[in-house]
Amino acid sequence: MKNNTITSPQGFRAAGVSCGIKEGGRLDLGLLVGEASCPAAAVFTRNRFCGAPVVVGREHVRDGQLRAIVVNSGRANAATGRRGLADAREMCRRVARTIGTADTEVLPASTGLIGAFLPMPKVRRGIDAALASLSSSTAAGRRFARAIMTTDTRLKLAGQQVRIGRSRVTIAGCCKGSGMIAPNLATMLAFVTTDAMIPARTLKRLLPAAVEHTFNRVTVDECPSTSDMVVVMASGATGRVTSNAATASFSAALRAVCESLAYQIAADGEGATRVLKVTVRGARTAKEAHAAARAIAASPLVKTAVNGGDPNWGRIVQALGAAPAAYRPERVTIRLDKTVLFTRGAPAPRLEKRKLAKIMRRRDVPIVIELGAGRFNDRVLTCDLSREYVSINADYHT
Amino acid sequence: MKNNTITSPQGFRAAGVSCGIKEGGRLDLGLLVGEASCPAAAVFTRNRFCGAPVVVGREHVRDGQLRAIVVNSGRANAATGRRGLADAREMCRRVARTIGTADTEVLPASTGLIGAFLPMPKVRRGIDAALASLSSSTAAGRRFARAIMTTDTRLKLAGQQVRIGRSRVTIAGCCKGSGMIAPNLATMLAFVTTDAMIPARTLKRLLPAAVEHTFNRVTVDECPSTSDMVVVMASGATGRVTSNAATASFSAALRAVCESLAYQIAADGEGATRVLKVTVRGARTAKEAHAAARAIAASPLVKTAVNGGDPNWGRIVQALGAAPAAYRPERVTIRLDKTVLFTRGAPAPRLEKRKLAKIMRRRDVPIVIELGAGRFNDRVLTCDLSREYVSINADYHT
Repeated sequence: MKNNTITSPQGFRAAGVSCGIKEGGRLDLGLLVGEASCPAAAVFTRNRFCGAPVVVGREHVRDGQLRAIVVNSGRANAATGRRGLADAREMCRRVARTIGTADTEVLPASTGLIGAFLPMPKVRRGIDAALASLSSSTAAGRRFARAIMTTDTRLKLAGQQVRIGRSRVTIAGCCKGSGMIAPNLATMLAFVTTDAMIPARTLKRLLPAAVEHTFNRVTVDECPSTSDMVVVMASGATGRVTSNAATASFSAALRAVCESLAYQIAADGEGATRVLKVTVRGARTAKEAHAAARAIAASPLVKTAVNGGDPNWGRIVQALGAAPAAYRPERVTIRLDKTVLFTRGAPAPRLEKRKLAKIMRRRDVPIVIELGAGRFNDRVLTCDLSREYVSINADYHT
Repeated sequence: MKNNTITSPQGFRAAGVSCGIKEGGRLDLGLLVGEASCPAAAVFTRNRFCGAPVVVGREHVRDGQLRAIVVNSGRANAATGRRGLADAREMCRRVARTIGTADTEVLPASTGLIGAFLPMPKVRRGIDAALASLSSSTAAGRRFARAIMTTDTRLKLAGQQVRIGRSRVTIAGCCKGSGMIAPNLATMLAFVTTDAMIPARTLKRLLPAAVEHTFNRVTVDECPSTSDMVVVMASGATGRVTSNAATASFSAALRAVCESLAYQIAADGEGATRVLKVTVRGARTAKEAHAAARAIAASPLVKTAVNGGDPNWGRIVQALGAAPAAYRPERVTIRLDKTVLFTRGAPAPRLEKRKLAKIMRRRDVPIVIELGAGRFNDRVLTCDLSREYVSINADYHT
């Protein structure tokens, strides 16, 4: 894809450099700068121990204007008290002075180890190097996306183009995240740019709606990390989004970008080999549809069964039965893709284990639950739970 | 210990036989019979898809009297519809006819694979063999305990003696359970016998209280399996528990038996190498104390860190921050045993990683959180999350 880096929309430059927070010369500091101040919106973690960049970021985006985003990986700058706050503010100030803007126009973000201070001499050098290498090239956008990675194994990029009036508007985003499920096990950061001309108050309305059905359905909000954030900046270089029709088009494209990034998080979950799509239909309320889907997606027993390619659907029944949702068990139907596993309170007759095992071994494993209790549906994405997940996290040393 | 099998209290006989539900001639059918009908009480899973034995067991214990318990392992007889209910009732009837009692005096239990029917010809033969081999010997009590095991690697037995008036009363119990944490990942069954003379209405009051602070603090109730149950039967062969003092003594001993069994479940969790004790103090409410302790005990990131012996306490902060509890982060203190890790919103100065790693590698790892928000405390037991856990559950085939 041509339009899937954050520098694809007009009006943005980016950089990604290595400043030595991570070992081995890996990129660990990213910078995104708009040509001018941009309408912006953000969604932040609800973790009570939110990181210093989240505290500072909330302040800075409050007025709906941002000029730049500065991010480091390797250390989360969370649970770091006053010193952490001072460090996050200094990151903003250093960027702001060089590009000639107010400190509050810069949003900071950090991901990595919680409870360790940032190595500020390295961070300062990194910021200076990033400022010196800003570019609107695709390569620069990719370097930014690489600089925010931690245990990710793949770059996560997405882009959409949409016609608004006579203009072609581009929306692009990148993100990082281990994608582990319920709870969310590492910082999830996502940055979205667009060249649409769209007011901050519209972005503030559209972004949470897009996040709710995409990033928050990779079970990101169930146990939010200290540092999660999704930020969007609009340069205004192309189409003006004002009419209801234009807003609807823009909103759909924004959601598609978030959906693609969220899927990529699940697919690149730590140790993941498969993506599990849990769909719940016919719940009594929207909340119960979500809770039921999440309970199944969060179950280590379901996830290990998927890892083993084992159609042990009794574990789906167990997880569903424990979810806070009301329905009559004898009305429930459970399907693996199109194959009915359980219906009318009992196993479906003549289940062919070999056929089921084949579906369980696909890249995407679709589990569908019909509750028969109402008209609300939801879907949660997750990945399988593998030995590698444990290895990554047991051996990830402080 | 001499008094730690369910046949230690006077008035009980037991048996454990192999009838071929499990492979390799392993014991898979257990029977416990009182000399006469006993006052009894039980606590059952709250899973909406509860197994057939839970449905039948609830009916049979309602009047507070039981004469026998019949249990099989290998198949849970859950999600098995009408046929499953008929099979559970037949198990009771077969026992009842031979020992000469009403069907409703027999409580059934099953543990193992969900969604598969019981192989009734084998179960019938097993019941007949168990009836023929009933004995009050210690060996018979141990065989019963072995017959209820699934992925357990150790027998789980506990016993207490307590003086009631001039009598010495014995309480003994056995249980099975993978002990995996949040959610509860396999059926947890526990059976407790006593020779105390104690009315069913007292047992009905004491048992849930004991369970709440023991079995339910191995996170068994967070995501209860389809088949969990804890049952107590009192033969009345020894001391009469009527006075408040006697009830208090009995209650304490009952709780000690449950506490020991719950600890054994955590310690024998699938793939477990360590027990993690999460204590929360100073919460605003009892519910929040429990929620905070459980959030930490349920975190795969905390559990993998404990598995790796890594004092990555930032993960404790993350899990705590996501728990539904109110407090001011800057008032929180986090300790590993006696060593302060985090206080006044920042890392404790001069943390010695080597010393911390040593504590993390103990058999019991104590994590203590002081919230500074109120006067409520709680504690949750769990185990670490290892590659073996994933192996056991990815390779456990249907």
